[in-house]
Amino acid sequence: MFNTTICKELDIEYPIIQGGMMWVSKTELSSAVSNAGGLGIITALSFGSSDELRSEIKKMKMATNKPFGVNITLLPTLRPINYDAYIDVILDEEVKIVETAGNNPEKYIVKLKDNNVKIIHKCTSIRHAKKAENIGCDFISIDGYECAGHPGEDDVTSLLLVPLAVESLKIPVIASGGFADARGFVAALALGATGVNMGTRFFATKEAPVHDNIKKAIVNASERDTILILRTLKNTMRVLKNDLAKTVYEMESKGAKLEELAPLLSGLRGKESFISGNTNNSLIACGMAAGLIKDIPSVSELIEKIISEAKSIVNQLHSL
Amino acid sequence: MFNTTICKELDIEYPIIQGGMMWVSKTELSSAVSNAGGLGIITALSFGSSDELRSEIKKMKMATNKPFGVNITLLPTLRPINYDAYIDVILDEEVKIVETAGNNPEKYIVKLKDNNVKIIHKCTSIRHAKKAENIGCDFISIDGYECAGHPGEDDVTSLLLVPLAVESLKIPVIASGGFADARGFVAALALGATGVNMGTRFFATKEAPVHDNIKKAIVNASERDTILILRTLKNTMRVLKNDLAKTVYEMESKGAKLEELAPLLSGLRGKESFISGNTNNSLIACGMAAGLIKDIPSVSELIEKIISEAKSIVNQLHSL
Repeated sequence: MFNTTICKELDIEYPIIQGGMMWVSKTELSSAVSNAGGLGIITALSFGSSDELRSEIKKMKMATNKPFGVNITLLPTLRPINYDAYIDVILDEEVKIVETAGNNPEKYIVKLKDNNVKIIHKCTSIRHAKKAENIGCDFISIDGYECAGHPGEDDVTSLLLVPLAVESLKIPVIASGGFADARGFVAALALGATGVNMGTRFFATKEAPVHDNIKKAIVNASERDTILILRTLKNTMRVLKNDLAKTVYEMESKGAKLEELAPLLSGLRGKESFISGNTNNSLIACGMAAGLIKDIPSVSELIEKIISEAKSIVNQLHSL
Repeated sequence: MFNTTICKELDIEYPIIQGGMMWVSKTELSSAVSNAGGLGIITALSFGSSDELRSEIKKMKMATNKPFGVNITLLPTLRPINYDAYIDVILDEEVKIVETAGNNPEKYIVKLKDNNVKIIHKCTSIRHAKKAENIGCDFISIDGYECAGHPGEDDVTSLLLVPLAVESLKIPVIASGGFADARGFVAALALGATGVNMGTRFFATKEAPVHDNIKKAIVNASERDTILILRTLKNTMRVLKNDLAKTVYEMESKGAKLEELAPLLSGLRGKESFISGNTNNSLIACGMAAGLIKDIPSVSELIEKIISEAKSIVNQLHSL
C-alpha cells in the first residue's frame, strides 16, 4: 500500500515525511510520526548545542525503534553555529537519515555518505536540486511556493516543481509545499513524487509541542491567511498573516530597510508564540496548506486517514 | 476511460477543456479539440461584433459535430461591449455550452438557463465560486495562481483551490491553471476535479492560429519565464516574461501610475505578436505550465497522449 522507492530505501511503511520545523520537530511529534509508519524528523537547530541535540536523539531512540531523521538547516544566522559539532553528534549517535536544507551541504556530504547516512536535500528550485543530486544527495525534497517558511524567490508552485524535478533528476523526489491530506498525497504521487513532506499539517496535531492557541490559529486560517514577507530582503518567508506579519509587510511596502525591520524579526520562527500561545507577537511559519486543515488529530489518526482515503481515491480513479 | 461527470453532462469523450484564449480560441483550434474528444471553446470577444461571432459559430458547426462552447468574458474594457448582442447570437445559434469569466454573470444567467445552456463559470476564488453556484452556474472552472492571464489577487495555487472548491461546492469543479500533461490531469482528478482546463498547452499546438515564433517561445520558456504584472493596478496578469513585460514590471516597481503604463498596454493579450511573430512587443498571457511544454503536437496527438499516459499513471498508482 503506497510502498514507493522511499519506503524501501528508508525502511518506512508509508511515504509520508514530517517536515523539519524549528522549535516544533522534537521527539514528542517526530517519534509519533515514525511510530505511525511515516518518517519523523527532528530539527538540529531547535537545540542550542550539539550536546542538547545528542540528548534529543537519545530521547528519540527511547521513543521509537522505527527509522527517523535529523534536519540540519544551513542558513546564515545571527549566532555562529558549529555545524561540524552537530554533524559529529548525528554520526556518533548513528542516525541514518539526514535532511539538509538552506545552503549547499557539499561540505558535509562526504562525511555523511562515508557513514552510510541517507541524505534528503530540501530545496526550492530545479537548479539547486540538480546541484544536490550531483554532490551525492539521495533524495530531493522539493518545496513549492505554497510551503511554510522559505519558498525562495522564484514562486514556482508544487504543481510544476514536482514533475519538473522528477523529469530533471535521477534520484527520487519528495513533494513538499501545499500537501495536507489524501487528495494532495495522491496528486503528489501522480506527479511522480516518491512521497510527500508535510509540515503545517503535522504542526496541527495533538503531539506537536506547541501551544494549543497556535494550532487553533492554523485550523482557523483559510487559504488566504498566509502572507509572504521579507521579499525585499530576498529572504522571502511564508508566515501566518497575523498582526506582526501585516506590520512587517506594510513596512516593506513603504521601503523599510533591514535595520528598521530587524527589531520585529527577533521572534522569527515563532518560538515565543509556540510557548505563550499569543498568536500575534511572533512570526509563525505557516504553509498555504493551512487552508485545508480543519482539525487537530493525533499523528496516527492523521496518517491512517490519509492512507485509507488515498486508497479509495486511487480505486475511484482506477474505476473511471 | 476517465468518463467523469462533466463527460456525461456535456456529452464529451474526455474531461479535457480548452481554455478560452483571446485571439487564439477560434475554430481552427477549438474544433480540433472537440473533434479529438475534448471540449473546444471559442472566445466571443475575439470577434469584433456579434455578427462576426455568428459567422464563427457557423464555421465551428461546419468543422465539428461534437459539442463545443463559447466563452464570454465580462471585463471592464476600453470599448463598450454589447454583451446582450453576443448572448443573443449564442442563443440564436443554439450553442449549448457557455463559459463565463470575469465579472458576475448573473445578468445573463436566467436567459441562458431558460435556453438549456450549460454554464461553466471561471473564477479565481472560493467566494466567487460559491456566488456563481448560487446564481445557477452548472460548473466552476477554478483558476489557480499558475494560470495565464488573470489569476486574481489572492495568489492561491491550484493544489489548494481545487480541493477547496470541490469541498465548498455542490456543482462539479474543473481544475485550471498549471495543467499541461497527464501527470497534472491525474493530479487534478485526485484533487476531486471533474476535469482539467488547459490554455497554454493548447496554445502550443499545431492548430492554434498564432505565429510559430510565439509557440516556440512557449516551448522555450521555463517554469521561471512568466511574470506577474499590473498588480499595482489590482488587475494582476500572468504573461510571458518578455522585454515588454519586464519593462512594465520595472515601471510598476518604481511606482508608475496607470497613465504611464497605459501606452505599453495597448498590445494587451498579444494580438500583435500572434500575427507578426515578434515575441517581445506585446504582452502575451502565458501560464506557468509553459515550463512543462516541450513540443508543438497536433491537438489529437496531445489529447491521445494525455489520456493514454494518464491511464498508465493510474495503473501504477493502483499497483503501489
